[in-house]
Amino acid sequence: MIVLFTDFGLQGPYTGQMKAVLTQRAPDMAVIDLFADAPVGNPKASAYLLAAYAAWFPAGAVFLCVIDPGVGGVRPAIIVEADSKWYVGPGNGLFELVQRRAEKTQCFDIEWKPERLSPSFHGRDLFAPVAAMLASGEPPPGKIRRDCADRQPDWPDDLSEIIYIDHFGNAMTGLRMAMLPGGATLAVAGQLLELARTFSDRPPGAAFYYENANGLVEIAVNQGRADRDLGLSVGSPVKIVS
Amino acid sequence: MIVLFTDFGLQGPYTGQMKAVLTQRAPDMAVIDLFADAPVGNPKASAYLLAAYAAWFPAGAVFLCVIDPGVGGVRPAIIVEADSKWYVGPGNGLFELVQRRAEKTQCFDIEWKPERLSPSFHGRDLFAPVAAMLASGEPPPGKIRRDCADRQPDWPDDLSEIIYIDHFGNAMTGLRMAMLPGGATLAVAGQLLELARTFSDRPPGAAFYYENANGLVEIAVNQGRADRDLGLSVGSPVKIVS
Amino acid sequence: MIVLFTDFGLQGPYTGQMKAVLTQRAPDMAVIDLFADAPVGNPKASAYLLAAYAAWFPAGAVFLCVIDPGVGGVRPAIIVEADSKWYVGPGNGLFELVQRRAEKTQCFDIEWKPERLSPSFHGRDLFAPVAAMLASGEPPPGKIRRDCADRQPDWPDDLSEIIYIDHFGNAMTGLRMAMLPGGATLAVAGQLLELARTFSDRPPGAAFYYENANGLVEIAVNQGRADRDLGLSVGSPVKIVS
Repeated sequence: MIVLFTDFGLQGPYTGQMKAVLTQRAPDMAVIDLFADAPVGNPKASAYLLAAYAAWFPAGAVFLCVIDPGVGGVRPAIIVEADSKWYVGPGNGLFELVQRRAEKTQCFDIEWKPERLSPSFHGRDLFAPVAAMLASGEPPPGKIRRDCADRQPDWPDDLSEIIYIDHFGNAMTGLRMAMLPGGATLAVAGQLLELARTFSDRPPGAAFYYENANGLVEIAVNQGRADRDLGLSVGSPVKIVS
Repeated sequence: MIVLFTDFGLQGPYTGQMKAVLTQRAPDMAVIDLFADAPVGNPKASAYLLAAYAAWFPAGAVFLCVIDPGVGGVRPAIIVEADSKWYVGPGNGLFELVQRRAEKTQCFDIEWKPERLSPSFHGRDLFAPVAAMLASGEPPPGKIRRDCADRQPDWPDDLSEIIYIDHFGNAMTGLRMAMLPGGATLAVAGQLLELARTFSDRPPGAAFYYENANGLVEIAVNQGRADRDLGLSVGSPVKIVS
Repeated sequence: MIVLFTDFGLQGPYTGQMKAVLTQRAPDMAVIDLFADAPVGNPKASAYLLAAYAAWFPAGAVFLCVIDPGVGGVRPAIIVEADSKWYVGPGNGLFELVQRRAEKTQCFDIEWKPERLSPSFHGRDLFAPVAAMLASGEPPPGKIRRDCADRQPDWPDDLSEIIYIDHFGNAMTGLRMAMLPGGATLAVAGQLLELARTFSDRPPGAAFYYENANGLVEIAVNQGRADRDLGLSVGSPVKIVS
């Protein structure tokens, strides 16, 4: 299974062209659109989102990940193996949390070169072919990285910020519920929020936080929109007050 | 064929995670995205939309349907068989019109339990695996329902409201053209609208109604947007005046 | 490989219903979503976009193209073969640039008729079945066109206008970089823009043009949005000043 995680948006030709590459090089492989709307040009917020969602997928999954504001510049192009899953994309911190949370991980510099590499679309020309190779069982086409230029040791283990707003207006944080003190109260946009199990446990219009289906702390409003009702967007701070 | 009908929106990880479940449990099955933008949290409008569009699909199709504002609460989780098609989702009225219009139908309570059921994402954890079982030819994993708590006998046979606005601004109603008196005039947003066969039969800017490609009465403006030009949204009333 | 190029938008049932037809008639064929958001009702801008993007695909690809404001009217329904690729859709100029740039091309009138042809959705009822036939290796179900009513000889070889705005706010023009004088300056929205190789070659906030990954001249702003920052939309003129 090849899983797509990008900030390409839903519109336009970018995801389609990557899939055209994948279907030619790995014809019978299932391709899953996980996120096409990861935080645009924001590898840090994306790194927490990816780590939370990748954990749910089975071993063997290959994640083709393109949040790549530095495309065409000096950032390395890498392959990460972490707990029997593969990740392909730019070495800009996007895989920092995947690696940090893995029991066993290693990182490769991509040494394979396509016939033609456009300066602005490595997703199609470089990362997609490499993902197809890995999904087909080929070894990583590169050498083990010797430096840590792709790592971000200063980033925290959990991010006390909003990292994603979904279609319903729910606001995901970069905090794992398992790391939160039991019975914690969160301060978000000047409001104190308590834990609820699910939406229907709260009256209409009430804001609360809950553990989403991938283990992240998520802010929601029953029959409302947390983004609009609380004024939240990607980057809004979240504070654990007790 | 498994057909997705949800209010998950196009963004975010929800449809992708459901498809990841489907591809693992029913690897060679085609999965079709029918609606990802059914009326949010509105099983009633969605029920008329689903019944109109499901009718077009061939026998054997399995519809995985998630418009589920009560997820995690007391609403039943059900399987409906209707005229050799299968429907899986919440028992909140979403299948009311499918059942009412079927020649032969029965309803099952889902008794299968996943290893882990998140309180907020039954689409992924419960409904998707059951849809994959049915698509693979397995019998429904449950017992025939004995009560009618999932039915909505008070809902009309056709809904005189706008139930969906499409990308072009056309406004679908919950009325089937076949049920409309011949030559009827519709009163919508203070305007009287007449029937046209198709867009190019009317001058630019003219509002009219026509039978859409799935048999529903639809309001449109040639080279315009009915939603904006007439001020229509989901729930706007439509009146048959002659 | 069947490639979809439409103005249906991402929402709604239109693309899904076309794919349901394709999966029934050509079950094992890969279907790629290239554009679902081609310029709405604008076959001219779409023709330049299609020609640029289709060039990237391998021989044998079948393009199912629906930008069809005249659906249900008198425009012909056609099949174009151009340099070993197939194109199916309305004969309203949409294939003008594909044909003009091809070494070898011919055009067929579709003579096959579906059992039921809705007046408003030829994409599903007519073009999708024909695309599936071609992808399955069947001969074109029609006769070679004898007139040129589907052609647009007055359209230029390259279009000096914005033809598409992408998710990042980048503005594609209908100009091929290969046709631009070396070192040309472009006048766009009252600004003079110079060529850059890629985004990271320019300071944040700087507007420039570059060759996009499909050979088109594209206007961008590093870490900004060209559409908003320069006030661009589909149809905005672009002038080559030197």
